[in-house]
Amino acid sequence: MPLDLRPADAGPAPARPAHAGPVDPRATGRLAQRPLPASAVRLDPAGHLGRWQTLNAAATLPHSIAMLETSGALPNLRRVVGESDAEYVGYMFADSDVYKVLEAVGWEIGRTGTDAFDGFLADTLDLLTRVQEDDGYLSSYVQGTRPGERFADLRWAHELYCAGHLIQAAVALHRGAGRDDYLALARRYADLLVRTFGPEGRAGYCGHPEVETALVELYRATGHEPYLATARRMVDERGQDLALLGPDRLGAHYFQDHAPVRESLEATGHAVRQLYLNAGVTDVYLEQGDDRLLAAVRAQWDSAHHQKMYVTGAMGSRHFDESFGDAYELPPDRAYAETCAAIADVQWSQRMLLADGGSRYADAVERALLNAVAASVSADGRAFFYSNPLHLRAGHREEENAPSRRTPWYSCACCPPNIARLVASLAAYVATATDDALRVQLYAAGEIDLPAHLGTGTVRVGTAYPADGRVRVDVDGELTGHLELRVPAWAPGLRLSVDGAPVPEPRVVDGYLTVPSGTRRVELDLDMPAVAVAAHPRVDAVRGAVALTRGPVVYCVEQADHPDGPSVEDVRLRPGGALVVEPRAGALPLIRAQGVAAETDDAPLYGTRTTTPADRPVPLTAVPYAEWGNRAPGPMRVWLPLA
Amino acid sequence: MPLDLRPADAGPAPARPAHAGPVDPRATGRLAQRPLPASAVRLDPAGHLGRWQTLNAAATLPHSIAMLETSGALPNLRRVVGESDAEYVGYMFADSDVYKVLEAVGWEIGRTGTDAFDGFLADTLDLLTRVQEDDGYLSSYVQGTRPGERFADLRWAHELYCAGHLIQAAVALHRGAGRDDYLALARRYADLLVRTFGPEGRAGYCGHPEVETALVELYRATGHEPYLATARRMVDERGQDLALLGPDRLGAHYFQDHAPVRESLEATGHAVRQLYLNAGVTDVYLEQGDDRLLAAVRAQWDSAHHQKMYVTGAMGSRHFDESFGDAYELPPDRAYAETCAAIADVQWSQRMLLADGGSRYADAVERALLNAVAASVSADGRAFFYSNPLHLRAGHREEENAPSRRTPWYSCACCPPNIARLVASLAAYVATATDDALRVQLYAAGEIDLPAHLGTGTVRVGTAYPADGRVRVDVDGELTGHLELRVPAWAPGLRLSVDGAPVPEPRVVDGYLTVPSGTRRVELDLDMPAVAVAAHPRVDAVRGAVALTRGPVVYCVEQADHPDGPSVEDVRLRPGGALVVEPRAGALPLIRAQGVAAETDDAPLYGTRTTTPADRPVPLTAVPYAEWGNRAPGPMRVWLPLA
Repeated sequence: MPLDLRPADAGPAPARPAHAGPVDPRATGRLAQRPLPASAVRLDPAGHLGRWQTLNAAATLPHSIAMLETSGALPNLRRVVGESDAEYVGYMFADSDVYKVLEAVGWEIGRTGTDAFDGFLADTLDLLTRVQEDDGYLSSYVQGTRPGERFADLRWAHELYCAGHLIQAAVALHRGAGRDDYLALARRYADLLVRTFGPEGRAGYCGHPEVETALVELYRATGHEPYLATARRMVDERGQDLALLGPDRLGAHYFQDHAPVRESLEATGHAVRQLYLNAGVTDVYLEQGDDRLLAAVRAQWDSAHHQKMYVTGAMGSRHFDESFGDAYELPPDRAYAETCAAIADVQWSQRMLLADGGSRYADAVERALLNAVAASVSADGRAFFYSNPLHLRAGHREEENAPSRRTPWYSCACCPPNIARLVASLAAYVATATDDALRVQLYAAGEIDLPAHLGTGTVRVGTAYPADGRVRVDVDGELTGHLELRVPAWAPGLRLSVDGAPVPEPRVVDGYLTVPSGTRRVELDLDMPAVAVAAHPRVDAVRGAVALTRGPVVYCVEQADHPDGPSVEDVRLRPGGALVVEPRAGALPLIRAQGVAAETDDAPLYGTRTTTPADRPVPLTAVPYAEWGNRAPGPMRVWLPLA
Repeated sequence: MPLDLRPADAGPAPARPAHAGPVDPRATGRLAQRPLPASAVRLDPAGHLGRWQTLNAAATLPHSIAMLETSGALPNLRRVVGESDAEYVGYMFADSDVYKVLEAVGWEIGRTGTDAFDGFLADTLDLLTRVQEDDGYLSSYVQGTRPGERFADLRWAHELYCAGHLIQAAVALHRGAGRDDYLALARRYADLLVRTFGPEGRAGYCGHPEVETALVELYRATGHEPYLATARRMVDERGQDLALLGPDRLGAHYFQDHAPVRESLEATGHAVRQLYLNAGVTDVYLEQGDDRLLAAVRAQWDSAHHQKMYVTGAMGSRHFDESFGDAYELPPDRAYAETCAAIADVQWSQRMLLADGGSRYADAVERALLNAVAASVSADGRAFFYSNPLHLRAGHREEENAPSRRTPWYSCACCPPNIARLVASLAAYVATATDDALRVQLYAAGEIDLPAHLGTGTVRVGTAYPADGRVRVDVDGELTGHLELRVPAWAPGLRLSVDGAPVPEPRVVDGYLTVPSGTRRVELDLDMPAVAVAAHPRVDAVRGAVALTRGPVVYCVEQADHPDGPSVEDVRLRPGGALVVEPRAGALPLIRAQGVAAETDDAPLYGTRTTTPADRPVPLTAVPYAEWGNRAPGPMRVWLPLA
C-alpha cells in the first residue's frame, strides 16, 4: 500500500493519477537521464525531506497564501478590476508571488490530493480571469500603474518573468491537480507572447529571464511547438548589450545581455537571472539540441560551481546588484546568497543531470537543498531568509536583506513562495531512469514506483539520511533492470551489501554503484565522519579557516550554544582536534569540537604582531547550518579559523 | 625669500596677503591646537606633497574644469537660464562638482597667486549669478527639473549639500583670492537657509550632511552668528528616524538619521555622509562647546578608525549603499573605500586634531592622504579612482565603480574635484600651534612662517619624506617658543639631534618630541624599515595575510612587476623573509620581498587538504599602493597571504 500523505483529518484518499513533475522533456534522444513521473516517488513523512514537505504544506503554504493578501499581491490584482482602492504595493513583479504559490499548490495537490487549497484556487482563478485582458495580457503592475505601456519596458517591468511564473503554475496545476482552467488562462497569455515575441514577432526578451524555461515546459505539457520556438528565439536573441533592453546603470552583465548565450561562459551578473536563464537554455537544448548550447551551459555550470559557489551551495556574492562576484570572491559575512538563487541552481542542476548525467549535478542539488535552501526556512516554516550569509558578525546591524533572524515576509517576496514550490516538488529530484537502470540521486526515506521497463512494483528506501549514511533499499516487486545508487563526492568510504551479502570491493563508476537486476535488498552504508573542509586557496575571505561538514550537511557555530563562552567571533578550531558526532533524537546530529578562545579586544586594528594572544581551551558545538538563527540572535560562523 | 610657487612663466609674484586655510575657528577657548594661516605654510615643489600640488594645479584642476563642461555640470546651470538646450545630465548634486572646482581654485590662488583661472571664475560667477533666484536659491537640479519643488525632498535633492559646497567655495575664494563676489552670492543662499532652517525656521536638514561644516566656516569667515546657529540647529534636529526626511528603502542609518547625533556613537551608514556630518559636529563643538558633542565625535572617531578603517586609511566597506560595514568587516577586494570618504576623513580628523590635540589624528590624516587619497589620482593627474580596492582579482570584471584602471571622470563625479580642493589646501595640514609651541604634524619639504607669539622668521623643513625618515628643520629667524615634532605611531625608533648635538634619549610625550626655544637646527631621523603589518584577528577577510608598509606608506604587489612570474593571486610571502628597501630616483622606494608561488589551478573549490601544493620561490616587488593601476591592468594585492 502506498504511503498515505494526506493530512490526518483528510477523507478517503482520492485517486492521484500518474503525472509528471516540474521537468518533463518531450524529446528523449538527448536525455542522459530521464525523470520519473512525480507521482512515482513518495517521500516518507518521517524522513528528512518528507518532514520538510509536511511542514511546507502545513505551515509555509498557508502562511504564504495569507501573506499574498497582507503583502498587497492579491490586492494589486483586485485594483485593476476596481475591487480594491489600495495603492499598488511592492515591486513590479508582485504577481509572481501569487503564481509561485499557485505552483506550489499544484505540486502539493499532486503529492497528497489535498483539497485544502481549492477555495484559494477558485478565488484566484476568478480574479485572474477578470484581470486578464481579452488578448491574454496580464500584469497588475503595468495594467494598474502604467496603462498603455505594455511590453514597453522589457528591462524592468518583469511582464515576461511574471508570465513565466503564471505558466509554471498552470503546468503544475495541470499535472498535479489535473486542472485545465489555469492552463487555458496561461495559454491565452503564452499565445500573446508567441504572437509578440515568437518567430513571427519582434525581437525581445525579458530583463529577468524565467519565461524561457516556462515556455519550454508549456510546450512539453501541450505539445504546441510555437511555445518552444518562442523560448528558443528569446535564447537566440539575447546578448545585444542592452540595445533592445535599453541602457541601465547596472550594466549589461546584470541582465546577461553582454554577450550571446552561446558565448557567455562565465556565470555573471544577477545570480537568479543567470541561473534561471541557464535552466531555460538547458531546456531548449534538451528539446532541440545544439551542441553550442550544451557547451555553454556546461561552462556556465563549471564557472558557477567550481569558482562561485558557497560551501552551502548558495550563489551570489554581492549585495550591490545581487550578483555573482569575480571567481573565488566568496565573502561569508556579506554573502548575498539569495534563497532564490539556490533554488534556481537546484532546478538548473536537475536539468543538467538530465542532459549530462553526472553525479556532480546531483551532488550540487543535494548541497544546495540541504544547506542553503534548508536554512532559508525557520523551524516553524513561517519565517524566511532572503540572503543567507555564512557569518553573522558580533554587533551586526540588521537590514531587510541582512537580518539576524528570519522574517515572515519581504518587500521583495520572491523567496518564500519559491521555497514552497520547490519543497512541494521535491519528489522530482529523488531518482531518474535510463533504458537500463533506475538511478537513485537523493537519499530520502520513501518509495519509488519502478518504471515498467525496469520492473514491477516499488522500491522502498529506508534511511535516516542525512542523520546517518545508512540506506536500505527493498524491492517490493521485481527489478528487471539495474539499480544505480549515487555515491556522493563527499563520501570517503562505503560498505555495500546486496541481498544480505557484503560486496567486497564495491565499484563506483562515474559516481554511481550498480546493483544487478533481480536484487531484492540493498544496504548501503556511506561513511559520514565529521570533516573539516577548506576552500580553494584563492577564496581569500576564508583563508586559514575550515568549515565543519558531515556528509552533505554543512555546520555552523552559533553563540546560542555558547552562552557562557567567549564570543563566537573569537573562537578558533584546534587543528587535528577530535570532531565528535553526537546524535540527537529526531534531528541531525551535533558536532562537538575542540576550540580555543583568543582575547582580541585590545589588539590594534593594524600592527606588527610580536606575541600571540593567550588562547584558552573552549569546547565548541556546531549545529547544522540549516538550523541557524532559530534561537537568540548572536554571532554565527560557518568558517572557523584554525588556531 | 619665500618659495616662489607660481608657474615658471608667470609674471612678478603678486602680493599674497596672509589668509586662513579651510578651518579657521573663531572661538579659541576649546582649541587644543590652533591652525596656522594657510599663507604661513609653503610646500617645496620638489617635495612629495609639493609635487602633488604642482600636478594638481597643472593637470587635475584644468582637467576638472574641462570636465565640468563635457560632463554637463555647467550646461545643467546654463539650461536654467535658457542658454543650453541639453537635458539635465547626471545626479541631482552635479552643481557641487562646479563648487568643489571653484573651491580648489580659491586655495590654488591663495597658494600661488595664479591668474590662470580668472576667466573661469568670471564666467562661472556670471552664470551662477543669473541662475540664482532673487531670494538666493540656487539648484540647477530643482530649478531645471523639478520647478516648484524647492526644499521639498531634503532626503535626495541635495540642495543643502550643494549649498554647502557653494559656501565652501566662496570661503576659499574669499580667503585665498580675496574675492568677495562669490562670498556675496553664497551669503544670499546662506541667508535663505537661515530663514528657512535656522532657529526661526522650520526643522530640516539635508539627506547628505555637508552644509553644517560649511555654515560654520561661513560664520567664521563673516562673523555672522545665524550661520552658526543654523548649523547647530541642523545638528540638534538630526536623528528623527526619517520622520522629517521621509521613508527610504536604504533606511535611517544610511542618512545618519537613526539616532540623535549625541547618541550616535558608531560610524554607520553612508560613509561620506557620516564623515562630513562628523566634521560639521566637530566644527559646531569647536565654536560653541557641548561636551556631549565632543564625546560623540570622539566615539565616532574611535569606531571609524579602530574598527572600520582600511590599512590605506580608506573607509566604507560596502558597494551596496557606499556604507560602513559592521566592525571589522573590511573586505579588500570589494572595498568600496570611496575617495571622498578618505578626503572627508582627512578633513574631519584635522578638526579633531584641533579639538583634541592627539597625534593619532595627524597619523590618520597622513595614512589616508599618502595612501587612499594618493591612490585615487593617476600619475598624470587626469584620471581617478572613485572606489579604492585593496585587491584586484585575476579576471576581474570591471564596472564603473570597480574599474581596473583609473578613469577620466565619473557619472557621479564627486571625487575628482574633491581631490583638487584637498590637494590645493594641503598646507593647512602641515603644522599647528599652541601658546607655547609650533607643532609640525606632517613632514613635507617646505617652510613655515613662525607665528608672532612663537618667534620671528621662518622654519624651513628639508626632507625627502616619506621616501626616507630624515627631517631637517632650520630656524631662519628666532624661535622663542618650543618646536614640537610628531613621532608617528608607526615609527619603531628615531634619532634626534638639536643644533648638531645628538639627544641621547629623546623623550616622546603624547606622540611628540619637544625642542626648546632658541634652537636653530633640528635633525630628526625616523626609522623607516619595511614592515609586515597584520590586521586585528576579527578582520576575517585578511586572516593569515600581511600588508607591507614602510613608514606611513602602504605597499602592494602588482602583476605588472611580475610579467613572467606566477599570478599575483597565487603568490605567498615567506614569513620572516628579508624585506629589502630599494631606493628609486625621484620616487618612493620599492620593497623587494621573498615569496613563494603556489600552483592552485587544480584545487577543488572545497575539499579536505591532505597535502600542501608544491611551492616554488619567487621574488616579489612591492610598489607604493598609491602608484597601483598606472601600468598594464592585472591582479593587485595589498594583503599578501603568508606561506
